Amino acid sequence: MQQTAGSGVHMANGYDPARSVALDPTTADLIRRRDRSLGPSYRLFYDEPIAVASASGLVLTGMDGRTYLDAYNNVPAIGHSHPAVASAVDRQLRTLNTHTRYLTEPILEYSERLLAKFPAPLERITYTCTGSEAIDLAVRIARHRTGKRGLIISEHAYHGTTVTAAGMSPSLGPNNPLGADVVTIPSIDTARTPAADIADRLASSIRSAIDELNERGAGVAALVLDSIFSSDGVQASPAGFLQPAAAIIRDVDALWIADEVQPGFGRTGNWWGFQRHGITPDLVVLGKPMGNGLPIAAVVGSLDVQAGFGAEVRYFNTFGGNPVCIAAATAVLDVIEKDGLVEHAAVVGDQLLTGLNALVDRHDHAFHARGAGLFGALDLGTEDRPDPALASRVVNSMRRAGVLISASGPDAASLKIRPPLPVTDTQCALILETLDAALADEEKTTS
Amino acid sequence: MQQTAGSGVHMANGYDPARSVALDPTTADLIRRRDRSLGPSYRLFYDEPIAVASASGLVLTGMDGRTYLDAYNNVPAIGHSHPAVASAVDRQLRTLNTHTRYLTEPILEYSERLLAKFPAPLERITYTCTGSEAIDLAVRIARHRTGKRGLIISEHAYHGTTVTAAGMSPSLGPNNPLGADVVTIPSIDTARTPAADIADRLASSIRSAIDELNERGAGVAALVLDSIFSSDGVQASPAGFLQPAAAIIRDVDALWIADEVQPGFGRTGNWWGFQRHGITPDLVVLGKPMGNGLPIAAVVGSLDVQAGFGAEVRYFNTFGGNPVCIAAATAVLDVIEKDGLVEHAAVVGDQLLTGLNALVDRHDHAFHARGAGLFGALDLGTEDRPDPALASRVVNSMRRAGVLISASGPDAASLKIRPPLPVTDTQCALILETLDAALADEEKTTS
Repeated sequence: MQQTAGSGVHMANGYDPARSVALDPTTADLIRRRDRSLGPSYRLFYDEPIAVASASGLVLTGMDGRTYLDAYNNVPAIGHSHPAVASAVDRQLRTLNTHTRYLTEPILEYSERLLAKFPAPLERITYTCTGSEAIDLAVRIARHRTGKRGLIISEHAYHGTTVTAAGMSPSLGPNNPLGADVVTIPSIDTARTPAADIADRLASSIRSAIDELNERGAGVAALVLDSIFSSDGVQASPAGFLQPAAAIIRDVDALWIADEVQPGFGRTGNWWGFQRHGITPDLVVLGKPMGNGLPIAAVVGSLDVQAGFGAEVRYFNTFGGNPVCIAAATAVLDVIEKDGLVEHAAVVGDQLLTGLNALVDRHDHAFHARGAGLFGALDLGTEDRPDPALASRVVNSMRRAGVLISASGPDAASLKIRPPLPVTDTQCALILETLDAALADEEKTTS
Repeated sequence: MQQTAGSGVHMANGYDPARSVALDPTTADLIRRRDRSLGPSYRLFYDEPIAVASASGLVLTGMDGRTYLDAYNNVPAIGHSHPAVASAVDRQLRTLNTHTRYLTEPILEYSERLLAKFPAPLERITYTCTGSEAIDLAVRIARHRTGKRGLIISEHAYHGTTVTAAGMSPSLGPNNPLGADVVTIPSIDTARTPAADIADRLASSIRSAIDELNERGAGVAALVLDSIFSSDGVQASPAGFLQPAAAIIRDVDALWIADEVQPGFGRTGNWWGFQRHGITPDLVVLGKPMGNGLPIAAVVGSLDVQAGFGAEVRYFNTFGGNPVCIAAATAVLDVIEKDGLVEHAAVVGDQLLTGLNALVDRHDHAFHARGAGLFGALDLGTEDRPDPALASRVVNSMRRAGVLISASGPDAASLKIRPPLPVTDTQCALILETLDAALADEEKTTS
């Protein structure tokens, strides 16, 4: 069966038809049609994949009429099917949708507004359609700027799907080879490292990686990090632990590329994840939530860092920065500002983290809670023994109870909770209650 | 000034502020704002860039109220601001927009309909957002399948903007390095090669490229060709000249990757450009016109060719195949079928080619006309001396007369005419008349 994951292709929360679960006929039929038309690299979520008919706000409605609270999807950042996005897209799509070799107004208005959210000297923006394309472009710029090839990434990083971005994404598994000039540093495990040591360990890892790239003759073009370490199990605190690393990278004249695809646009309770750490990257990569699901992404950086590349290499992305996707992104910016969603993410995020910590107190196999804003994580297992099987059971149990989350991290034992930003305190409480019940059920089963 | 092209970055029809043309205040202001907010790799079209306010069908309307007949843009394939696309997108955007790890209906319906347009065994589709991402994915699949690294491309090819795709795009200029395992074959110049020799010369070039890649130890993963050779000056005839090349590539167990981003979706008067040549590629890359401007692209291939990659490597593109872009693509398919645009492209394309040939008869400096369907080219200059400066003057003169075309090819001396598919015979006649007048004006000036 085509959708079977091959050996060595473990995906946290991936559907595996070999683990037979009785599926309802509609779902089974959709999977059969999918197997007969889509490429064999596709994977589904959950032991019982969800056939979705519609979505609104934080609620997905299945084809069977069941509803689910979405506590995982960070793409519809301002909520599913937001009418402000639909109206803006409709208006623009009936007026003009062309490319950046003509002058159009929407891209300039949006760029000016968005750039105002960045600290100096982050002052110029280039649009792509996906985070993968944006990471890929940032690498091209960094290599051109430094004349070096080497890239330093985290051990369980995910940065995208192009040849170059996949070569920087060891979390895709052992069959996905690292790029030739890519060196990894160990995943930061903030749950198992004394807080006072985290910054030093990271700095020391980066020094070793620099040495290795220099020995190989590649030199260092850039350090590429997601400041919330989304695929490395969510590593958020203590805020500021990136600062010594930033100094080291600057010392060797390499660039800091901040992958803000996950933490950006308010998710962590700040506009940008790097702000929590008090650093200013050289290039910032934006993606997922930017257009609430319309394909838009970007690279932001200083003119100085990009000038040489820009003078010598033209970059044209046919769909990048088209007026329709820009209209969607503008609506997202409007709603985030008008509804105060950055501040809201901080407030409800505190409620989420407090609740997760209470679960650690209450459940023996809930080992550590952490997060920033609406990006929460809960490690299952014990300090010595992370429990990915338990994480998988809890994720699927919550899905049956109507709340969608997933698992992540090098051990796939960290629950990842990441609802759209407008999650209410009531919805947050429901997520926590459902998780509490799922953990209690597991204890009953195993005791 | 930031938008100045650097040395060695010639772009056919690129705006160069160093060649000072008096711009109206609105245009000048938009360029200033652009220079202050967008990345320095952006380039504009025309000596006097166009500030566009709206577009409908084949007509662009400038901010100054002037209208332009679009005879160049192949992205809005069914016409600018088509209401069928807007309605489909609006409906879907207010209902559901999520990713492919859930089951949704639209992607399956569309995939089944689209795959029915392909010959066996091209039976599975994987979605990306851009042609660049799709080429990049096709390369990943080809390398995984063959265990080889080498890629053969045309000398003036353009395949995209990722690190890997840009490394296969020598038309981006001398500052854009070829990829490590990429070998070029000479551009086919059908205007200057006896028709009977074209297929043999191509075959012979490919044999040499295979030898070179084998000597380097890279082996051959794939030959990647755009069957209309869009950036190589548009090389269309005699149809069938790709067949010996296909046999050679199959002989060495490499893949044929057909880049259908330019010729696909009816442009050449066939659904797919490779059909004109009577070959069946291993992987087909789709892009630009697929969603009439919404970012959607794809790779199509047999299950057999993709199975190994699919079993070992998962591919997830967050926005790839999202229901909203699929809705746009479905509307495009509806309109192409309902309005018979493939047949229409063949019929009006014949009118275009007949007209271009008449211009060759009438104008000394119009040397050769060619094309297929609504993809026409006219070489300016003489057999011995292509004239890019004349091509540039004609393109800008037509822009002043209200008809938008561009130039292309290794010498940038081939006019490229590529209107949206619904171009009427009256509009086609207007394009030809305007071109006739522009060429006549040039003769007056230079005689």
